[in-house]
Amino acid sequence: MSYYPPSVLNLIQQLSRLPGIGEKTAERLAMHLLRVPGREAEALARGILNVREKVRLCSRCFALSDTDICGICSNPARDASQVCVVENIAEMVAIERAGGFAGLYHVLQGVLSPMDGVGPDDIRVRELVRRVREGGVREVVLATGTHLEGETTAAFIAERLSAYPVRVSRIASGVPLGGDLRYVDQVTLKRAMETRHVL
Amino acid sequence: MSYYPPSVLNLIQQLSRLPGIGEKTAERLAMHLLRVPGREAEALARGILNVREKVRLCSRCFALSDTDICGICSNPARDASQVCVVENIAEMVAIERAGGFAGLYHVLQGVLSPMDGVGPDDIRVRELVRRVREGGVREVVLATGTHLEGETTAAFIAERLSAYPVRVSRIASGVPLGGDLRYVDQVTLKRAMETRHVL
Ligand SMILES: [Zn+2]
Ligand SMILES: [Zn+2]
Repeated sequence: MSYYPPSVLNLIQQLSRLPGIGEKTAERLAMHLLRVPGREAEALARGILNVREKVRLCSRCFALSDTDICGICSNPARDASQVCVVENIAEMVAIERAGGFAGLYHVLQGVLSPMDGVGPDDIRVRELVRRVREGGVREVVLATGTHLEGETTAAFIAERLSAYPVRVSRIASGVPLGGDLRYVDQVTLKRAMETRHVL
Repeated sequence: MSYYPPSVLNLIQQLSRLPGIGEKTAERLAMHLLRVPGREAEALARGILNVREKVRLCSRCFALSDTDICGICSNPARDASQVCVVENIAEMVAIERAGGFAGLYHVLQGVLSPMDGVGPDDIRVRELVRRVREGGVREVVLATGTHLEGETTAAFIAERLSAYPVRVSRIASGVPLGGDLRYVDQVTLKRAMETRHVL
């Protein structure tokens, strides 16, 4: 790659470190950044520096925020009596995109995983209990994943909250909508059968 | 996307402007840049700013360079008596990758295109003639594309250089190696037949 000057080689290398960006793509992106107007390349660079400087975790729900309290927590249109517990920000975003939930969130930043040494104090369970204890929360929706650790975490939190006058619910699991049963894994199918409901 | 704070939304938007990066990918990259150590995100931002500040065109061959004269032009191991004329940097890089050429380059930054108002003065033909006139060049290899405008440009430059004691050659065109004849377009195949050589 000696046909590129050091500054270009460095940029290609930095871009290659991004997930899913191979060297070919990094090269193409670097050429693009050399071709666009200077202010466009600068806007990207400043955007990266700015986000690292500004973004923190919401001190209430631990979602991403530019301010102490995030946009969702400070939105008076959201129902503060419902708190949806999620493993991480990506899962919160997925629920927001799907729509259908207008309450607040509590982002655990992980799930219980004794094998990896991750206990309740590592995933903000205490902070959740405190939110419930402070009052105003009528329902906690446990929306951790339906994998083993997600189930364990949900069960653990449900147990912890059982001492408080709050309704604790779990998102439904079952056959995905629009799916053929034969393509659904056996565990999901068995559980869907067991939790069938009368119409 | 109100579930992301403004700084994150801005970064996603900037990343989406990159070629081949859709919104989904931009989102994934933004989350990555928030997750990695600060210095890694900064290295990318600084890499972008640095490349825009440092890179210019080599004053001799018009390839990318951090210095007045590029690494290839200033490399004593390269054969300065051969100059390969290419349309742009990407084509120069393709030739370097392929290997087999150890001379210098002349990057036109375009091809003749009367319809688009691109004439010889727009694509550094004068600078090429000057390099030849200054002496030391024994062969000019015309490696513009084999599309119509590339052919026209090569013919034009050959004509311009005919007044000078320099050998002017054109890269070979024909059936790509490893290709089945039936998959080669008709024009290429016809030309390959016409320019067949005796073994
Ligand atoms: Zn919040
Ligand atoms: Zn040069």
